[in-house]
Amino acid sequence: MDLYQADPIYERVSKSFEKQSFLSLIGAKIEHIEKGKVAISCERKDTLLQQQGLLHGGVITTLADVAGGCAALTTMPENVEVLTVELKINLMRPAISNKVIAVGEVIKAGKTLVIVEATVTDKDNKILAKMISTMFATGETV
Amino acid sequence: MDLYQADPIYERVSKSFEKQSFLSLIGAKIEHIEKGKVAISCERKDTLLQQQGLLHGGVITTLADVAGGCAALTTMPENVEVLTVELKINLMRPAISNKVIAVGEVIKAGKTLVIVEATVTDKDNKILAKMISTMFATGETV
Amino acid sequence: MDLYQADPIYERVSKSFEKQSFLSLIGAKIEHIEKGKVAISCERKDTLLQQQGLLHGGVITTLADVAGGCAALTTMPENVEVLTVELKINLMRPAISNKVIAVGEVIKAGKTLVIVEATVTDKDNKILAKMISTMFATGETV
Amino acid sequence: MDLYQADPIYERVSKSFEKQSFLSLIGAKIEHIEKGKVAISCERKDTLLQQQGLLHGGVITTLADVAGGCAALTTMPENVEVLTVELKINLMRPAISNKVIAVGEVIKAGKTLVIVEATVTDKDNKILAKMISTMFATGETV
Repeated sequence: MDLYQADPIYERVSKSFEKQSFLSLIGAKIEHIEKGKVAISCERKDTLLQQQGLLHGGVITTLADVAGGCAALTTMPENVEVLTVELKINLMRPAISNKVIAVGEVIKAGKTLVIVEATVTDKDNKILAKMISTMFATGETV
Repeated sequence: MDLYQADPIYERVSKSFEKQSFLSLIGAKIEHIEKGKVAISCERKDTLLQQQGLLHGGVITTLADVAGGCAALTTMPENVEVLTVELKINLMRPAISNKVIAVGEVIKAGKTLVIVEATVTDKDNKILAKMISTMFATGETV
Repeated sequence: MDLYQADPIYERVSKSFEKQSFLSLIGAKIEHIEKGKVAISCERKDTLLQQQGLLHGGVITTLADVAGGCAALTTMPENVEVLTVELKINLMRPAISNKVIAVGEVIKAGKTLVIVEATVTDKDNKILAKMISTMFATGETV
Repeated sequence: MDLYQADPIYERVSKSFEKQSFLSLIGAKIEHIEKGKVAISCERKDTLLQQQGLLHGGVITTLADVAGGCAALTTMPENVEVLTVELKINLMRPAISNKVIAVGEVIKAGKTLVIVEATVTDKDNKILAKMISTMFATGETV
């Protein structure tokens, strides 16, 4: 990702990411940033589990949401933030892997609304979850 | 909730809840348990925020998911667990309140599939989010 | 519904409804109009069925979508149309009844986005389906 | 599609399709069948429109649902039917084209639950809508 660090898109996404304290709590990391596509990863930790010892669905959903939101952000003009209007996720397989990756991609970039999808996979590239959501551009943040 | 503590439904839900380490990480608490309906709360903390300093959508969604899952669990026979197949949440208002409550309710209890809805409100009873999800009964856990 | 016929809300909704040729094809009818809430009905016909002889899910979904869209329309200024951005429906019970009713209600009225829910019931008031969707105000139509 | 007509999968899907009178009412046609993937098309007709003269969202959603359901059916043993448990569709662009195609694909084939996605495009291959849904295998139909 070093290559991207001078890019304004890289800066905007990583700044927005770092401001989200919840992402630091769960240990989420940016894996990749390009226009319209962002990947976020998270490692299994003892504090992130559900009742059967698997990565919690809430963690999976957060990763998918953030990957999608960051992807949407890359299509926005400066000083415009995006908020999730709605998301729908299908949790398809239990997350037994030590690391999961959520790849968010813009499938329709509008001025006000951005539609994104995110796929969460484990390290064997098995699909754990698939999300489609609607993001809303919130005008100037300053 | 004292009244319920001797009830087997109370025990099953609180056991399942306590096993979920992620819920302890975010500080979620059970507020109410009855057959078909469970309420979960969470207080705003500096570690749970998004980029604008509001409670993260991932936290809101986790609360809604868990409230719905626990409500589904109350309709299941002993030793049967429920897993979220899919959830869809509309995030309607920013969570600026210090405390939010997610109330999950079963709207269709089947043997294999349970449909639940959850409403997340702030302390002024304003609706922050609304979720409908499908839970799947996973047979014996032992 | 006679009482409402002089009301501009009544007129706007019924005009929008009548312009939708697909609703006349399936035989949908307006049952009730008030600010923020619209009910639409449809009777079982031989042309509206799925492979098991039940009312087709596409018909149920159309009714829910239209009930929600019309409810959203009642909260809009004149000359503003609404379009469905996304909808999610849980089909909970087979529609074996001769008549179904979809009641759409606004749960969050914004300037640009309106969140609605719709419940589809049969004549015994059993819930067949539940939908939550996002509607988008499309500015002037003229 | 002639090549497929002797295949039992082809027969099962086309039989299920033909039994759905609603599909004949809207003029839907099977365009392609293979294991895990089915395409359905529909032409714009004066009877299928919404208030602005575009193809109705209910028609688009029906096509997506049926394409997904038929795709799910191709992964099922004989005599097992599938029903839609829930579907979520994002309607991204108005359908101004004379013909639309919905391609449904299985993304997770389970014994009881099948997760499918469908993409609806116009004749210029622009994406009009994207759906993810959960199908439920209903055991023997006889």
